[in-house]
Amino acid sequence: MPEKKIFDKKKEFSEWYVAAIENAELLDQRYPVKGFPVYPPWGFKALRALFRVLEEMLEKEDDNQPVLFPVVIPEDFLKKEAEHVAGFEGEVFWVTHGGHTALAKKLALRPTSETAMYPIFAYWIKSYMDLPLKIHQTVTVYRYETKHTRMLIRGREVFWNEGHAAHRTWDDAYKHVVKVSDIYSRFFKKFGIPFVLLKRPAWDKFPGADFTVALDTLMPDGRALQIGTVHHLGENFAKAFEIKYLDRDQKMKYVSQTSYGISMRALAAIIGIHGDNIGIILPPEIAPIQVVIVPIPSKKVDIESLYEYCNKIYNTLKENDIRAYLDLSDATPGEKYYKWERKGVPLRIEIGAKEYSESKATIVRRDTRKRETVPLEQLINKIKLTFETMMSDMAKRAKEEFDKSISSAISLDELRRIISEKGGFVKVPLCDIESKGEECGTVIKNECGAEVRGVTFPEPEQPPSGSKCIVCGNNAKYLAWVAKSY
Amino acid sequence: MPEKKIFDKKKEFSEWYVAAIENAELLDQRYPVKGFPVYPPWGFKALRALFRVLEEMLEKEDDNQPVLFPVVIPEDFLKKEAEHVAGFEGEVFWVTHGGHTALAKKLALRPTSETAMYPIFAYWIKSYMDLPLKIHQTVTVYRYETKHTRMLIRGREVFWNEGHAAHRTWDDAYKHVVKVSDIYSRFFKKFGIPFVLLKRPAWDKFPGADFTVALDTLMPDGRALQIGTVHHLGENFAKAFEIKYLDRDQKMKYVSQTSYGISMRALAAIIGIHGDNIGIILPPEIAPIQVVIVPIPSKKVDIESLYEYCNKIYNTLKENDIRAYLDLSDATPGEKYYKWERKGVPLRIEIGAKEYSESKATIVRRDTRKRETVPLEQLINKIKLTFETMMSDMAKRAKEEFDKSISSAISLDELRRIISEKGGFVKVPLCDIESKGEECGTVIKNECGAEVRGVTFPEPEQPPSGSKCIVCGNNAKYLAWVAKSY
Repeated sequence: MPEKKIFDKKKEFSEWYVAAIENAELLDQRYPVKGFPVYPPWGFKALRALFRVLEEMLEKEDDNQPVLFPVVIPEDFLKKEAEHVAGFEGEVFWVTHGGHTALAKKLALRPTSETAMYPIFAYWIKSYMDLPLKIHQTVTVYRYETKHTRMLIRGREVFWNEGHAAHRTWDDAYKHVVKVSDIYSRFFKKFGIPFVLLKRPAWDKFPGADFTVALDTLMPDGRALQIGTVHHLGENFAKAFEIKYLDRDQKMKYVSQTSYGISMRALAAIIGIHGDNIGIILPPEIAPIQVVIVPIPSKKVDIESLYEYCNKIYNTLKENDIRAYLDLSDATPGEKYYKWERKGVPLRIEIGAKEYSESKATIVRRDTRKRETVPLEQLINKIKLTFETMMSDMAKRAKEEFDKSISSAISLDELRRIISEKGGFVKVPLCDIESKGEECGTVIKNECGAEVRGVTFPEPEQPPSGSKCIVCGNNAKYLAWVAKSY
Repeated sequence: MPEKKIFDKKKEFSEWYVAAIENAELLDQRYPVKGFPVYPPWGFKALRALFRVLEEMLEKEDDNQPVLFPVVIPEDFLKKEAEHVAGFEGEVFWVTHGGHTALAKKLALRPTSETAMYPIFAYWIKSYMDLPLKIHQTVTVYRYETKHTRMLIRGREVFWNEGHAAHRTWDDAYKHVVKVSDIYSRFFKKFGIPFVLLKRPAWDKFPGADFTVALDTLMPDGRALQIGTVHHLGENFAKAFEIKYLDRDQKMKYVSQTSYGISMRALAAIIGIHGDNIGIILPPEIAPIQVVIVPIPSKKVDIESLYEYCNKIYNTLKENDIRAYLDLSDATPGEKYYKWERKGVPLRIEIGAKEYSESKATIVRRDTRKRETVPLEQLINKIKLTFETMMSDMAKRAKEEFDKSISSAISLDELRRIISEKGGFVKVPLCDIESKGEECGTVIKNECGAEVRGVTFPEPEQPPSGSKCIVCGNNAKYLAWVAKSY
């Protein structure tokens, strides 16, 4: 891709974000259909590695089984759950023709798979012994977004993993919301992404859900980014799709359901939060190349011996399951450093005459760019240790930034000022997050340009006793988290 | 799924095939859009494992890089290569609306990704140093099939892995056709699927290709099933999409291209070829459960000790990376045997009082149903060895069947008789497989109900000297393989 200039991440985050992604070749936006990205090898390898970690967690820790459901949903299925269709109908892509023939029934490209899967759940679930049923799939979903699209954040073709489960009781489903929230939380912690787990206000829940829990992180421009959601669907879809089971007491009952998802936004968060002015920084676990080896030719060592030494190191890394690359291209060492730094490779090994003659290797961390020279026999251990240290340092720095971005306000004026000057999350006392609080939420939106993102889950934080709602002045029931968002 | 009766695989293959797949819960056909299957956990796990083997071979042995391209292709892109669009236009699904808005330009759901990828190749390829470019993706593709759909064989949503490469010269592309054919061949050999590698006649090549090489296997009903294809695209798409590079000699040249794919038919072949009258038999490498442990309670051992012993075996298997399942359900041992046999689990371990008291385990192979009792300390080695023996026995039996199904004919009458009585492949002398042979191919099709599938690749078998074309009586240039096909 044509090289983009580098921007200051803090001051010009939007421009930095696009340049960082394009310079790393994570995504190619030149496909001529708006919102449909191409994932070149570097981007897709990182994305695939990231989602395999998630899939493995869901399968091993919560016995979710992988499945694959069709991309098309018949119109009448999509329309079975009233709230759901109201939420999605306006942004669905429709398939209307096969060859030169108009289809008898138009087909939606799945915007999410509830209405594709649940008619089949009705076949699969007969008795309490079939419950819980927990499945997941990693697929692309489609939304005719009319808002401004943004790489890995808002597009018309969305890469995600979606989980769907059916349970005996509402309480079982509630426990599953807590469990999946915990898995999602640990998934993001693994990659050093700080977040807050919020129960969304009733007016911002998933269409068709009883309630929605979401993980919100903060991008460097101070705007909240939703990076994961877990929905308690109650019996809403079960009633629409007649998903019933024979319980131990010989009564037919509706199942209670949960659905949950994490999209390519997980990668957006990693890019935005960990990157620096040079570009992206990839966590070692998902970096397509974890260590790049750069030989530094000089008059003090003959080139063949130098390359042979580098090759020996490369082979040792490979044998130890480290994804390594030996850059023997014609570029200068400086050009190589720059190229691989922009691609976010976590570690670089520099081998010059000194390293060669002393049987050592110099390693350079992508995040701090600190160099350290170690004897060859310590190299593997040092690399593995550095991966861990680096990831925990990245997480720590990110968490500090995140914590610094949380403020409090007890008046609309104060809230407006913080939102416009500093951004981030602002905790405010609020009367309610059920439907009767919506009016206050709208005032906040209109007067401060920020949204009520919800209250902490599972335990909502309480405002100091006697607190009044920041908008209506009635007794405040919650401390609500407010932020501008993507 | 409702249980289906069992059919005789040889005599009623069509009915057997559907019942075997449904009883194993590999696929669910109840989704109400024709040709769009649901892959339940058992089926998707096997499919995922199978395709991960293929992906790893492509990545490790041929440096193919994974990517992800959009599912939609703008109409004008699809139409750029004249032969290609003629081949696909009639069977493309069209997306025409986003929400309530008619799209300015209608979008095809990819029937294959040449026309999605190659406009982007034109951006990625600038110089000979960018070549070869080799990428692959595992996705679903869409074809508005008007023919009878058939599970895992012909559907409207097709799961596959497609590879696409660009090369400096036509010869480089030719060498790549040979290399990918070899990788595909070894992929199928790994799973005991016999096949013949054929260069398709010109009238049956991929639309837009210079020529097509295909792997054909035989299903038990004597019909050929195409399970993999490798296309030499020449410069046809390069010219349509202006994919040019600056060569070493400073001249701008068109790239030569290859594309290749293996679909879910690979799983269809495994089911059809290895199954028996009970149902499917899964190769150990892709079986979601490789070993099921069934306790056989009796008065001679207390149930807790028996379960504890089974559990110890289960844990040992897990520790040795064997995908095991301990069936402690309420069903009888006989019911359990039947259930897991129909799901194709390669090995069963039976633990009764005798095994318990003697510290042994009885293992039963799914393919031969032969039992063998081994001391516990030999169990892991025995299992691993049995996986290998079983797979090679399955491959051997399949190859024998395949070889028995190959006949020869030197007259149309003889060909007609063999095709109708026995099926399988029939080798016949043919004048040509380029366009001037098409007329003879049509006669074979019309008079014998079978197709010219092609000639062996890379070396075409020669007919005995002086042979005459089975149709026109002119000198025969090739021994062509003829078969009825799916």
